[in-house]
Order: sequence, then structure tokens, then C-alpha cells
Amino acid sequence: MSAIDGSVLVLNAGSSSIKFQLFDADHSHLHGEVDGLGTDHPHLRISGDSDIPKADRALSPKEAFCHESALAVVVAWLDEALPDARVLAVGHRVVHGGPNYGDPVEVNDRILEDLERLIPLAPLHQPHNISGIRAARVAFPDARQVACFDTAFHRGHSFAETVFALPRQYYDEGVRRYGFHGVSYDYISCRLAEIAPEIAKKRVIAAHLGNGASMCAMHEGRSISSTMGFSALDGLVMGTRCGQIDPGVLLYLMQQRGMDGDAIATLLYHDSGLKGLSEISSDMRELEASDDPRAAQAIEHFVARIRRELGGLTAVLGGLDALVFTGGIGEHSRLIRQMVCTGQAWLGLAFDEAANAANADVLSASGSAVTVLRIPTDEERMIARAARKLIRG
Amino acid sequence: MSAIDGSVLVLNAGSSSIKFQLFDADHSHLHGEVDGLGTDHPHLRISGDSDIPKADRALSPKEAFCHESALAVVVAWLDEALPDARVLAVGHRVVHGGPNYGDPVEVNDRILEDLERLIPLAPLHQPHNISGIRAARVAFPDARQVACFDTAFHRGHSFAETVFALPRQYYDEGVRRYGFHGVSYDYISCRLAEIAPEIAKKRVIAAHLGNGASMCAMHEGRSISSTMGFSALDGLVMGTRCGQIDPGVLLYLMQQRGMDGDAIATLLYHDSGLKGLSEISSDMRELEASDDPRAAQAIEHFVARIRRELGGLTAVLGGLDALVFTGGIGEHSRLIRQMVCTGQAWLGLAFDEAANAANADVLSASGSAVTVLRIPTDEERMIARAARKLIRG
Repeated sequence: MSAIDGSVLVLNAGSSSIKFQLFDADHSHLHGEVDGLGTDHPHLRISGDSDIPKADRALSPKEAFCHESALAVVVAWLDEALPDARVLAVGHRVVHGGPNYGDPVEVNDRILEDLERLIPLAPLHQPHNISGIRAARVAFPDARQVACFDTAFHRGHSFAETVFALPRQYYDEGVRRYGFHGVSYDYISCRLAEIAPEIAKKRVIAAHLGNGASMCAMHEGRSISSTMGFSALDGLVMGTRCGQIDPGVLLYLMQQRGMDGDAIATLLYHDSGLKGLSEISSDMRELEASDDPRAAQAIEHFVARIRRELGGLTAVLGGLDALVFTGGIGEHSRLIRQMVCTGQAWLGLAFDEAANAANADVLSASGSAVTVLRIPTDEERMIARAARKLIRG
Repeated sequence: MSAIDGSVLVLNAGSSSIKFQLFDADHSHLHGEVDGLGTDHPHLRISGDSDIPKADRALSPKEAFCHESALAVVVAWLDEALPDARVLAVGHRVVHGGPNYGDPVEVNDRILEDLERLIPLAPLHQPHNISGIRAARVAFPDARQVACFDTAFHRGHSFAETVFALPRQYYDEGVRRYGFHGVSYDYISCRLAEIAPEIAKKRVIAAHLGNGASMCAMHEGRSISSTMGFSALDGLVMGTRCGQIDPGVLLYLMQQRGMDGDAIATLLYHDSGLKGLSEISSDMRELEASDDPRAAQAIEHFVARIRRELGGLTAVLGGLDALVFTGGIGEHSRLIRQMVCTGQAWLGLAFDEAANAANADVLSASGSAVTVLRIPTDEERMIARAARKLIRG
């Protein structure tokens, strides 16, 4: 490991955890996480290359009561385990870049202020992402800080795809369809260009199905439309998030049930989705393993929403050449892929059940007008690449 | 007109108006409206068959301060103009039938109580519909009162199409995707069976485009899915309503802008849609006539949303055999139909520009896999038929 030189540390700072991954020249040496931040039981886990010592130990509440203290633990571990490693850049995943940030940027004080102004657009994620950047500036004072935005890949959407049918002042103040999971879709677009360059130029829908879930319509490798909009709530059903919902439901919750914004936010972000509908779990693996009819209904609704959005995005593209599954569910759930792809002859999609059962990379039958691919995403690698590119100038 | 015997009066009671139409054996003899209810300037308008006297006069505020007083004016006019007419039944358009009412019903006290319990599901429309029924019971004490529900045609939707991804208790208390404009779609379904019985059995999407707008996917004449959900807000962009919107936008309005439920309801029901986006008008005719770029953008967004939902509903149906345009915009706007149908070769839709320009009934080219039809809707006729059928037992 003494060979590590000019490394990029990728950080993903959430409300109660900080995840990190150390890259060198597109190779990931280690990944780890401090979770339970601010609780009585924080925990550190690190694993990676065979020559890198593992870590798996409880931390004291004081060691990890915030991002800054947690990162200090990580720095201490790095100093001991990899004394020769030099972190030249820290790459940050930032949920919201607002209307203006369409590319990764090196963070300075002015940009940090800009990102703080976007907190009202993503109050559940943006503050933690910013806190992670501030912590990394303290922990790695000599490294350059690079922010990559989950909205950036979608910045080229047309006005008609971006606007809500509200008075224009709302658009002007930033109430727009931004789209998220952009770092993942950017990776898929790059990966497609490597493994299937002819398809990469055509009409592609990528389905990022994980605990968060969305779909992105791409043409010639660029994002045209997404199922996510202003927030990370819209579109597909997610682990605990509702996805697309009638605004009248929120008015009902306010006017008839007397719920305030915080209560509705908790309901829609944390208690809905697969978890709310099944009353069993937010985890698709648990639902698939369950024989409770509520689990089957939750799965059926999850798939029905994907199929409908697949039709909607195909309409935006004017036809479909390829469908890509990615994210935890997209990469691993044979059942979900099969339920999404069955009976799609109207799209010209012929599904290869055997390939799907084998978790193959190509899931469409030969002769299918729509190529179906399974591509594991790698958002951290995308952020590391962006950071490396930026610091090389 | 002395031949009128066994008539059905169809009533549509709104917040500030009451519209009525008198049918006899599927023939509409007259239609009229009292508008400006509860204002300083109510007005009565009636016209119909050539032998029926017209009315067009201002009413005093006292004559039309509520549905009951306005109906008394109509009864007095009927007594004078058509002394031999007998109103055997009054058919009412009621926006919400909740989860249970799937067919028209003769209203009794118990049913009125049921409908009142649904007010929280449609607070802007249901109270006026009920007030109209109460007024008609006073005005026509010997007539039978029949309620037709805008939700009823959609009652056969699957659980996956009906449920939101919320905790199940909300479904149980009635927070579901109901769908609206059902009386119009029911009429379109019946009309299709008359004029194109082969198509009526297949996969059809009807687009009811008016000041309110939605789309309905039908198979074998039955509704399978709709773009409208729990309220009349969801789905397509409307004259002053927002249509589909990220729930995160409502949280933003509550939490960042401090707006309460009434303020958000006013924004989303009355100040959004084409009106909010164009800042010019809620009326498509005015937007089409305008050379203001904001009008063009509003139209473009309106159409983009229709095209996307057309793809989504086609996915629900597993392909498309026919597309029907109805409602004020659907029946009359050549521009909107053309923008919706252009470049839809991926659907197998070949559009006949000349037929569209001529406002023909069939708008698809010969050989098109998707038949495109223009069918004027007639909700009042559908309600009259239902009322006549019910009172004949």
C-alpha cells in the first residue's frame, strides 16, 4: 500500500452515517462506513484489498457524535494503517446542485455558501452533504474538495420537462423538476459507451432501483427526462418513500387530518413506500422471501409503477432501444426484472428468462428490438474520476 | 312542447352556478344555467329547441343567493314556459362516490348521509353537488333524485392501480386513486360500442381535455386506469390546476414558504395550470391565439404531459388500438391534437393531418395501427339515460 500516491477519498455524508472509499488511478483500495452517528452506538467498518487491515469495532458516542469527529477517527485509522497514503482530493456526493451546477466543482467558500442556499430544496440531505464537506476540510486540510451533484446529469432537460404547471415565479425561485441519481446515470452512460457503444447512442432507459429508485431516459448518452422531480420523493415507489402521489392527498392530510409539514414529511419520506404498503419491510429481499399477501401486493404495485413510467419515458424518447437495470434491486432481483419485462411485446422487448435467472449481463433474447442489460452502478468510482480529473486541471 | 312527458332534468351544481338540461327519451329539449350564485350579479340563461322560449336575464341577488333559490327561479320559468312538462326524475352529477358507489343510485336520506361523509375527499365540489340534490328535492318534491358519480366508471381498477404507497390505514380510510370524468368516459365507451364496435372491445385511451383534463385507459369498454387519482388535481395540466406535481413541492410550500392548506389549495386549484404557466389565460383558445412565447411554452408543456401519460397508459394496457379525443379542447383544438399525435410512429400511430384540419371524426390515416377518433362527449345525456333507466326499474 505504500504505492498509494495521489489518492482520492470519496465521501457520502448522510444524517447518521458517513461512507467513504479510497481510490487510486480508478482502483478502489478500501471502503468503509461510520454509522450510528450521534447515537449511543456508533460503529466503524472498513475493508478492502487483501493487504489492507480490516476494521470492525464499536466507537464511543464521543468519537462519532458528528461528521467531523467521525472523520477524525477515519484519519487516525488511515495514518496508522496506511501511513504512506496521501489524500490529494476528497470527492463529495452532494444531492442538490440547483439550477446552475451542471458539472463537478472544486469547493471554495463561495460555492459552499451557494450550496447552503439550496438547503430549502433538499432539507433532508443537503445539510449533511455540506457538513461532510466542512468536516473533510478540517480532516484533510491539504486536500482539494470536489463536489459532484446528483442533479447535474439532468441539467440539459428541456423547459417542458423541467417546469411544473405553477405560476412562473416558482420556477424562477427554483421549484423545478431536477431529477436525481445523476451520478449513477452518468456512470451507466459512460459504461454503456464502453461495453455497447452502438446502444449508448440510441434511446435508453436506465432504472436505478435501490432503497431510493428512479428511472432516466437517455438519448445519445445524455439525460432527457427522469421520474424524479423537485425532491427525492417523486416517481417510483421506494423503500420508505411514497413516489408519485396526488397533491390532493397532501391537502387532505393538512386540511382534514391536521398534519403539519414535519409530520407529512416523516410520513412520505420514512413511513411510506414498500414499508408502508407491506407493513413488513422496506427491503425488497424480505418482501420477496415473505409469503404474506401484503408483501406480494407491495411488490405488484412497485412493478406496476415501474412499468407505467417505462411507458411514459419511452413516449418522451419516441421509442426504446435499450433498458438498463441497476442499483441494489435492479442488479440483484431476478423477480423484479422478470415482472417488469414480462408481457412487453408491445415495446418489442423479448425477455430471456434463462439469462435473467442466471443474473447475466444481457437479459433480452436475441432479436429483441429492446436490448435489456444489467449493469452494476458505481457512483463512488464516478466521483473519484471527477475529482481526479478536476485536480489534474 | 306539450308532448314532453316523463322528462328528466339533469343538474350540475357547482360553487357559483347551477347548470341544467331537460331530456325526454334521449332528446335534449333545453339547457340553461344560473351563474353568479351568491354574488351581486346572478344571471339566468336558457335556450333549446326552436319552440322553446329563450331566457337571458339578470337575476336579483336575492333570487339566486343559493342553489335552492336559483332552482326556484328555474321551476317558475318551467311552469310558465312549459306548463305541461312533468319532471319525473332529476339526475345529478356528483363528483365523488367513494369506494362503494359503482353505479347510479336513487338518492334517499341514508345515501345523502353517505355522500356527505365523502366531503373530505372532494371538499371543493362535493358540498355543492349535495346542495344541488337538496335543492332539487325541494324544487321537485314529486320527482325521483338520481345521483351519477364521476368516480363510478373507474371502480373496477385493480388494487395496484388504486393504492398509493402509503401506510395501509390511509387506503382503508379512503385515500385511493379514484379517477374522475367517469360520466364522460362512460359515454365515450357507449358511443364507441355504437360507432366502432370492433374498436370498443380493444385497448383504447380516451383523452378528456377541457378546463379539467384527464385520460382513461379502457379495455373491452371498461376503465383500467386513469391519470386522475384521489382528487381532481392530479395527472394532466388543466386550465387552472397543476396536474401531476412532486409532493416535495407541497412540503416546500409548507415548510419554506409557510403556506397553509387553504393557500396551497387555492394555488394548485385556481392559480396554476395553463393560467399560472402562461400568465395569460386558462383558456386554450386564447393561448393558441397569442403570440406570447409564454403561451407557446404553456401549450408545449400541456402537450408534453399528455404524450407522457399516453405512453404510461399504453404500458398499462400493453399496447394501444385507439385514441379518442373529447372535451372542449379535444373536440375543437386542431393544434393540440396535432401536437399530441405527431411523431408517434413508435406507437404505430399514423396521423391524418388533412382530416384533423377538417375536424373530422376519424383522424388517423388508413393503415394506422392506432385509430384516432374525435368524439364529442355528452355527460348530461349519460346522466339522463341513467336516471331514466333507474326510474323505469
